[in-house]
Amino acid sequence: MHTCELPLSGHLRQLADAGLTRQRRRLDSPVAPHVRVEGQEMLAFASNDYLGLAAHPEIIAALAQGARDWGAGSGASHLVSGHLTAHATLERRLAEFTGFERCLGFSTGYLANLAVTPTLAAGRDDAIFADRLNHASLIDAARLSRARQHRYPHGDMAALERLLARSTAKNKVIVSDAVFSMDGDLAPLCDLFQLAERFDAWLVIDDAHGFGVLGTEGRGSLAHCGLPVHPRILLMATLGKAAGVGGAFVAGSALAIEYLLQKARSYIFTTAQPPAIAVAATKSLEIIQRDEARRVHLRALIQQLRAGCATLPWRLLPSETAIQPLLLGENEQALALSQQLWQRGLWVAAIRPPTVPPGTARLRISLSAAHSEEDVARLVRALRELA
Amino acid sequence: MHTCELPLSGHLRQLADAGLTRQRRRLDSPVAPHVRVEGQEMLAFASNDYLGLAAHPEIIAALAQGARDWGAGSGASHLVSGHLTAHATLERRLAEFTGFERCLGFSTGYLANLAVTPTLAAGRDDAIFADRLNHASLIDAARLSRARQHRYPHGDMAALERLLARSTAKNKVIVSDAVFSMDGDLAPLCDLFQLAERFDAWLVIDDAHGFGVLGTEGRGSLAHCGLPVHPRILLMATLGKAAGVGGAFVAGSALAIEYLLQKARSYIFTTAQPPAIAVAATKSLEIIQRDEARRVHLRALIQQLRAGCATLPWRLLPSETAIQPLLLGENEQALALSQQLWQRGLWVAAIRPPTVPPGTARLRISLSAAHSEEDVARLVRALRELA
Repeated sequence: MHTCELPLSGHLRQLADAGLTRQRRRLDSPVAPHVRVEGQEMLAFASNDYLGLAAHPEIIAALAQGARDWGAGSGASHLVSGHLTAHATLERRLAEFTGFERCLGFSTGYLANLAVTPTLAAGRDDAIFADRLNHASLIDAARLSRARQHRYPHGDMAALERLLARSTAKNKVIVSDAVFSMDGDLAPLCDLFQLAERFDAWLVIDDAHGFGVLGTEGRGSLAHCGLPVHPRILLMATLGKAAGVGGAFVAGSALAIEYLLQKARSYIFTTAQPPAIAVAATKSLEIIQRDEARRVHLRALIQQLRAGCATLPWRLLPSETAIQPLLLGENEQALALSQQLWQRGLWVAAIRPPTVPPGTARLRISLSAAHSEEDVARLVRALRELA
Repeated sequence: MHTCELPLSGHLRQLADAGLTRQRRRLDSPVAPHVRVEGQEMLAFASNDYLGLAAHPEIIAALAQGARDWGAGSGASHLVSGHLTAHATLERRLAEFTGFERCLGFSTGYLANLAVTPTLAAGRDDAIFADRLNHASLIDAARLSRARQHRYPHGDMAALERLLARSTAKNKVIVSDAVFSMDGDLAPLCDLFQLAERFDAWLVIDDAHGFGVLGTEGRGSLAHCGLPVHPRILLMATLGKAAGVGGAFVAGSALAIEYLLQKARSYIFTTAQPPAIAVAATKSLEIIQRDEARRVHLRALIQQLRAGCATLPWRLLPSETAIQPLLLGENEQALALSQQLWQRGLWVAAIRPPTVPPGTARLRISLSAAHSEEDVARLVRALRELA
């Protein structure tokens, strides 16, 4: 081992000693509930493919056709020479679908989030107000800004109101996940919007886990909560979860989006995503919109799981989304249950600190419209036997 | 216009008044030298598709087949359930190709860069030493770290040596582009490595613009400069430029890569790229390695352009890479020449501050193995006529 590697080696040993080493499992088959993982047949409740679109034949065909029509790569950033009609079409359809005036495409949600907050709140006189459980990319976005940082306890609107009332910042940005990825619960979006209105703040919403799943035609958490499409809202959502493809977008007023296009570093200084991915995402959007049956089926599975888990000694956290966390508490307990399920051919991820607060280790049961009732029944049976 | 939009509107007006509004042009055809841009036939010298692989039939076929074999999306982050054999194969081939023990795949170079520096230099007692002309993503990566920041004048090894000698940080990270994207020049990689050895620092190299283009079999800038594959080097390169597809990777020692996998936020908290993209990139790697003729042709085009521009009143910056910047000086001059070329059907981007230092506005002529000798001759003729 080289000298410079010694500290890393020490840190890795500490992780291992604390039982916190992360393990990467390799899928030998496409994403679906029934997968082959390193040679083993598994029933997975571990993906964010909430609508089961990752393996949809029409989307796969669109991706293949997109490659033939537009080539493999975009060759440059959007502002240099990498903006193809395939990207422009996706942006237009996303605007029509979300109702916002304009959208901007990104290769990942991480980059999309990095584009918004530090660009809206760039200066030291600005202020950012963030839910404590926001996604890592929103936290990093805030850290890239020079603005004053305020974090409020998860979902605590009274605390947020106090922070906003005390703030002397001219330019305020409230940032929140819509659906929290490890809890599955919804942010109080209407309250957030009212506070944004009252204190003249921007409202930046990350709907990675609500888009496609919630609201009329899968329009997402804003539609689900009846929020208006409003120029002070910037909506980020990904196309690699319920949409089953990859990439992400930011939606907003024409002016706000033009501002991001002109100023956001993570938009300007990155290669545009392969155009075929944009073609596949455009097809996915069409299916999300028309195929209400997938959401109906997913909601039925959520009800089935929640009813089935009601008598377990562990509690399912309140959630009406595809993310159904089973609270275990101690790390070892969560890990042990996950391993026992694994031995029965069931793949459910154990989530431990620092991803969740200490003492709240959990199984993150992730449902998909591609699951059958029998799949969910099998998981419920196994949990009951292991209880 | 809504109240919250007023400041943005003002900023946009300032940009427009300074003539710095960026314009996004839409390609109606795949990436290639001869493209249709918003209805107009253009000969482009504006892409980073340096080997002309974005439209390579074998890579397009691999992308289409990858979609059929692996579906449209990966559905989750690598560490949850999104790591497919398609990704694993690409990582293994990249390690074989670069000679490093292990590689880690990313959706974009921006995210790959964000993974490295803030993870290696996380603490306040650490120190980062960065070339002043480093890419925006390397600058943002440094800003995400709590480490002490040092920036040295472009390529100034004496200044870097002084900063390293004065530093009391235990853990030092030197960060540099290998090929600077707006200048086309190479960092003094051997000197950087020697300083890293002498001061026991990590050396993080972003080879976005050298990978595929320079070195034996296109192995990149490190190979070009004869640098050893060494555990203190972490190499980042993208697969959306010379490789013609999309995504990026970090290569390093098995231990350093395992450390990034366990700790890097922009690796852990992002959805894995669509597996078909990894399949296409794997095919691209094979072509990069075997098709030396593309690099031979590209080098000939570079010589042709440099010889042809020798008598112009403007100077081509010293560069042996596909990036050949023609120094104009004033913003208006660069913009005017770019527009005159555009009217003749030639697309060459004008690059102005803040992307480059004030007074160094330039045309960034970007060559590709897909250009013909006649393409380059046409550009040279036009430049001579406009001189």
